[in-house]
Amino acid sequence: MFSEKAALRIPGPTPVPPEVTRAMTHSMIGHRSADFSNLLKNVEDKLRPLFGTSGAVAVIAGTGTGGLEAAIANLVLPGDGVLSVTTGNFGDRFADIAKRAGAVLHTLSYDWGTPANPDDIDRFLTENDHVKVVLVTHCETSTGVLNDVKTIAQIVRKHNAYIIVDAVSSLVGAKLPMDEWNIDLVATGSQKALALPPGLALVGISERALQRIKERPGRSLYFDLARYAKDLSNNTTPWTPPVSLVYGLLESLTMIEEEGLENVQARHLLLRDMTRAAIRALNLPLLVTEDQYASPTVTTVSTPDFDADAFRKILKNELHISVAGGQKQLSGKIFRIGHMGYVDAADMLQCISAIEVALYKIGHKIELGVGIKAAEEVLVRA
Amino acid sequence: MFSEKAALRIPGPTPVPPEVTRAMTHSMIGHRSADFSNLLKNVEDKLRPLFGTSGAVAVIAGTGTGGLEAAIANLVLPGDGVLSVTTGNFGDRFADIAKRAGAVLHTLSYDWGTPANPDDIDRFLTENDHVKVVLVTHCETSTGVLNDVKTIAQIVRKHNAYIIVDAVSSLVGAKLPMDEWNIDLVATGSQKALALPPGLALVGISERALQRIKERPGRSLYFDLARYAKDLSNNTTPWTPPVSLVYGLLESLTMIEEEGLENVQARHLLLRDMTRAAIRALNLPLLVTEDQYASPTVTTVSTPDFDADAFRKILKNELHISVAGGQKQLSGKIFRIGHMGYVDAADMLQCISAIEVALYKIGHKIELGVGIKAAEEVLVRA
Repeated sequence: MFSEKAALRIPGPTPVPPEVTRAMTHSMIGHRSADFSNLLKNVEDKLRPLFGTSGAVAVIAGTGTGGLEAAIANLVLPGDGVLSVTTGNFGDRFADIAKRAGAVLHTLSYDWGTPANPDDIDRFLTENDHVKVVLVTHCETSTGVLNDVKTIAQIVRKHNAYIIVDAVSSLVGAKLPMDEWNIDLVATGSQKALALPPGLALVGISERALQRIKERPGRSLYFDLARYAKDLSNNTTPWTPPVSLVYGLLESLTMIEEEGLENVQARHLLLRDMTRAAIRALNLPLLVTEDQYASPTVTTVSTPDFDADAFRKILKNELHISVAGGQKQLSGKIFRIGHMGYVDAADMLQCISAIEVALYKIGHKIELGVGIKAAEEVLVRA
Repeated sequence: MFSEKAALRIPGPTPVPPEVTRAMTHSMIGHRSADFSNLLKNVEDKLRPLFGTSGAVAVIAGTGTGGLEAAIANLVLPGDGVLSVTTGNFGDRFADIAKRAGAVLHTLSYDWGTPANPDDIDRFLTENDHVKVVLVTHCETSTGVLNDVKTIAQIVRKHNAYIIVDAVSSLVGAKLPMDEWNIDLVATGSQKALALPPGLALVGISERALQRIKERPGRSLYFDLARYAKDLSNNTTPWTPPVSLVYGLLESLTMIEEEGLENVQARHLLLRDMTRAAIRALNLPLLVTEDQYASPTVTTVSTPDFDADAFRKILKNELHISVAGGQKQLSGKIFRIGHMGYVDAADMLQCISAIEVALYKIGHKIELGVGIKAAEEVLVRA
């Protein structure tokens, strides 16, 4: 009965709205047709304000990791010095991509749950002026840290270097106006706050990055961002695009436009605040202690007195709610609640209440109702 | 009324069966869940016989060009000697990918419409034993040529080199048992004979290729085929997979299994033979003159006495049937009829009859009914 009912409160893939699912069932069309060009133009017109850029946003068949590789393949040539700022598992992956691409890699690593310190980056770039590309994760999905990309990008620009931001689990959910903040490339995926199935990588390309890419073409044809940008000006794509997902994307972008980007971001902050208030009331430690560094899209909770994965099993099997576990060294020690995309306050009330029940069942000492009360209080005051 | 009614007789994307569309509307699930692992295992079990390999078939978020780049990124390192056998536009693209990847590129080019001559390849490899990778397009979608990959692969193996086959518009529609024919890597896309929307690249990885890749890892993490193969043995993928398309893929593979791969391929040959008989009866020149080199998935027709694109416009606007035009130097001079995937004999009868009507309207001198009669004769004798 409930096999297809599982509220996805993992940090991606996220639930797909029925409107988007329906849009994706459009009859297949040729990708060199006027119909597709119109579709792509409409998508592009809505994507630019979302990325906060006057540049192009490449729509690529691939997932978030593909978007990160696209960014690196264009700005990092073999032998280039690269600084990777890593605050978790996805920062490590970002660095791995650069390393495989032949970068001379330098790393600033932070404890999982701790945000990057912009001063360290400033110091590093001062002492290493051969490093011209900096990789930063906006929301580190493995820990729920939201890095201060605005300050970091300012520093990178001061050193006349380039910054690539992994916004896979942040874009739309968190503020990230790339032109205003001097960000060169921003990569995201469709299966997070955009509320689409996975399969689309989106890469925002600033004018400055495009200039650089044109001067020094990378080694990948599939991910050639200069080519994507050029073809976009003719409302087309260099290779066959994932047509159904692009139909879905237009619907998702329309829904975001209707709600208003600022309202969407306020909603994500509210969901975060409800969740954090509840977790605090339940006497469980938040992995990210300071609110200003807590992602609006994913909240991570430490489980010092029980096994996080056993808890997740109860939540999934008995209450049909999926939250994610910890990765690598945090496996079994934390759980991660995704609250991004097609998720509203009522979804979080349900999720938090179910978490209380599962905590009770696993034997964690709580008073039923205190977490949900705290969340409701945040909600009624919003 | 008819805006969404356009019989797609282009060589991809091809029509998506309603069963596949419905499968793709499955609720979103987590990609690290048992449900997804089961799905991927079922897909993989059905993909291997389709590729004719005991090796792995990587399921990658990307389109056909992404699959080609994945193959090259793993078998071609900067400085490697590569022979590109090009018989049209997609052969040129294949070569471009290798060039961008840093290959020392050699090219054997053939006139558009002419198949590659295996003897030339044998001679080339004899004289250039530093060349260890050969790129061949199975069905050249821009011309409708089906290259003799079986013989070419035998020659490549004799020279102890590696062969990568572009099977984007051939796999499933044309016979290509990769292990039996000694093919190292085969790349295809979802939007051709598999009858899915675009967005999936599939790469068949022979044991021999996998060995080579493990010894010499490439520069791409996203496309790292050794990693895909390793993760497949645990029924998972290295990065988030395009979940909805994988649901669609399972349905498509089930439909192919039910019809039987040999029957599917016989159907494609029948559609080709019907189309070629009709075109001959209509006194239009086939770009590929010899039947043995004519692709079972796409038929190309020259239009010496009228503009192919004006003809296509009539077909689309008045009869709601889309055929493709010529690419590059063949633009306006040919049209291309796709007959692959979710296409049956009745679809081709409709298409051929509509072509007659459009030919009449554009002023090409024909006797109405002679083409369709020839097609019907092929069909009743099948």
